[in-house]
Amino acid sequence: MPRTAEDSEPTLSERLLAGDRRALARAITLVENDDPAGWEIVREVYPHTGRAALIGFTGPPGVGKSTLLAALTKLERERGRSVAVLSIDPSSPFTHGALLGDRIRLADHFLDPGVFIRSMANRGALGGLSEATLQAALLMDAAGRDVVLLETVGVGQAEVDIIDHADSVVLVLMPGSGDSVQALKAGVMEIPDIIVVNKADHPLTDTMVREIKGVLALGPKQGWEVPVLRAQAVHGDGVDELLDKLGEHRAFIQAEGTLSERRRRNLRNEVLGIAALRLRQRLEAAIAHDPQVIELLERVARRELDPASAAGAILDGRPDG
Amino acid sequence: MPRTAEDSEPTLSERLLAGDRRALARAITLVENDDPAGWEIVREVYPHTGRAALIGFTGPPGVGKSTLLAALTKLERERGRSVAVLSIDPSSPFTHGALLGDRIRLADHFLDPGVFIRSMANRGALGGLSEATLQAALLMDAAGRDVVLLETVGVGQAEVDIIDHADSVVLVLMPGSGDSVQALKAGVMEIPDIIVVNKADHPLTDTMVREIKGVLALGPKQGWEVPVLRAQAVHGDGVDELLDKLGEHRAFIQAEGTLSERRRRNLRNEVLGIAALRLRQRLEAAIAHDPQVIELLERVARRELDPASAAGAILDGRPDG
Repeated sequence: MPRTAEDSEPTLSERLLAGDRRALARAITLVENDDPAGWEIVREVYPHTGRAALIGFTGPPGVGKSTLLAALTKLERERGRSVAVLSIDPSSPFTHGALLGDRIRLADHFLDPGVFIRSMANRGALGGLSEATLQAALLMDAAGRDVVLLETVGVGQAEVDIIDHADSVVLVLMPGSGDSVQALKAGVMEIPDIIVVNKADHPLTDTMVREIKGVLALGPKQGWEVPVLRAQAVHGDGVDELLDKLGEHRAFIQAEGTLSERRRRNLRNEVLGIAALRLRQRLEAAIAHDPQVIELLERVARRELDPASAAGAILDGRPDG
Repeated sequence: MPRTAEDSEPTLSERLLAGDRRALARAITLVENDDPAGWEIVREVYPHTGRAALIGFTGPPGVGKSTLLAALTKLERERGRSVAVLSIDPSSPFTHGALLGDRIRLADHFLDPGVFIRSMANRGALGGLSEATLQAALLMDAAGRDVVLLETVGVGQAEVDIIDHADSVVLVLMPGSGDSVQALKAGVMEIPDIIVVNKADHPLTDTMVREIKGVLALGPKQGWEVPVLRAQAVHGDGVDELLDKLGEHRAFIQAEGTLSERRRRNLRNEVLGIAALRLRQRLEAAIAHDPQVIELLERVARRELDPASAAGAILDGRPDG
């Protein structure tokens, strides 16, 4: 057959690798929708990943993370680096729009081809958002973005799992973030690489910084000393210093060898996470349609069969329990 | 063979059903250690569960949850009801002892046979704490406890999963819990059944209560109106009212039929959770020992094979990817 014009059309993967923003957006949507074509693209471009700096931002809602990200993006652009921002939406169906205002804060960058902005929503009880997040970050990396900024709202384990994909983790707080400081103190929250106290014009900022440093002093001494920075992201104050510290942290983990260690561990967790997710999906599918499984669940509700026995029966295909 | 004295010894399950505290403690340890004997006991006693009121308490560290639980326990005892308290320890290895002080607050009750106190620690990356929590709560229920109080530190998704086993969920805050109110507002945190503002002698209490009520007013109107109570647990103030509201909530969900609905949903999630956990355990075991799986992970780290393809290869037993 003669070669047609269609044959010479570049594939989505090729366009993505060439830095095409629309191809990147399309590929992320495919991954987000769990479309096999999305996973195929990640497979094709994966050898071209590993170059971007992945930086994660976490912290309670309302502290100004997105304003900080917008200011950081501006500065990265001034230094000639291309940026991708991936915001992870909160999970509750109670009220939405938490990140809507945040995206508006990034609006200055909407027309800059050097900035790619994307948000992803939680995909419900099956989880998998953490897995989809890394896939999307890999696509951004393959598309040639120098810096990938991951942002999530909240400070629980689910957020930590997402942010854990990053090479460097920044915790953003503000004066009044008492719960988060308590959580750090109690060991409920992991110690990040950098802490930023935003809205640092607040009169209680000094107290807050002192409190945080007190908590850090209690922790195990490691090679990297966690800096506690002050910022007023809305005026761009303190953002230069944050960028410098991020550079220092990167140089530190590269010199120490922990960057490749972190990435190896993160990739291992990603493999396990995807495998476990697919196992659970197969299970959910079976449960929705299998009348014997439905009967098992009924017996559990009637207190005739305990949950663990029902789980065992489902796994081993013994629907009689 | 003649019947010996040993034959007539009651089994652990029988002793537990008779209300024996040591049998209950032993059975929970077995469940916590994932010992098959523990699951067997749950299987045996499961038909005798469903009678206890399961009440969950969540909230950031430091707000005084355990003091509140101690005061509530005292009041329940005065009203002639037996109590079990199950405290779930936080997960980070950074610093421990967050709940140690809390257990000391319950020390007044250590000698009262009508009060059973137990804490459980997170069991690491495999998760499963949520599953073990419900198993332990079922054992407490079967042992004839009228009230089972579940307590967890933190306000993330993992804590919500644990507390979700409860019939009624109480969120405990204090003036200064700005992060939690923001999380409620942003829809990151689920709306509980009752909110208690503890340490209500603080001058900012009124502001805090007003703020919380403002957030609740934004939410969808449902049958149950979430009360915002004030308490000073350390003096026992407001605890009577909390107990009354818990009674009202229970009567409400019983009358409405949502209690059995909640329990049906929780038990279904428990079955799925246990099944998924066991699947993941099988996977982890395979990964630790299988040289072909280890080679797959190496190829992922070298960026030769993407994580999803590696996961698929592991699931389908195609170690060549």
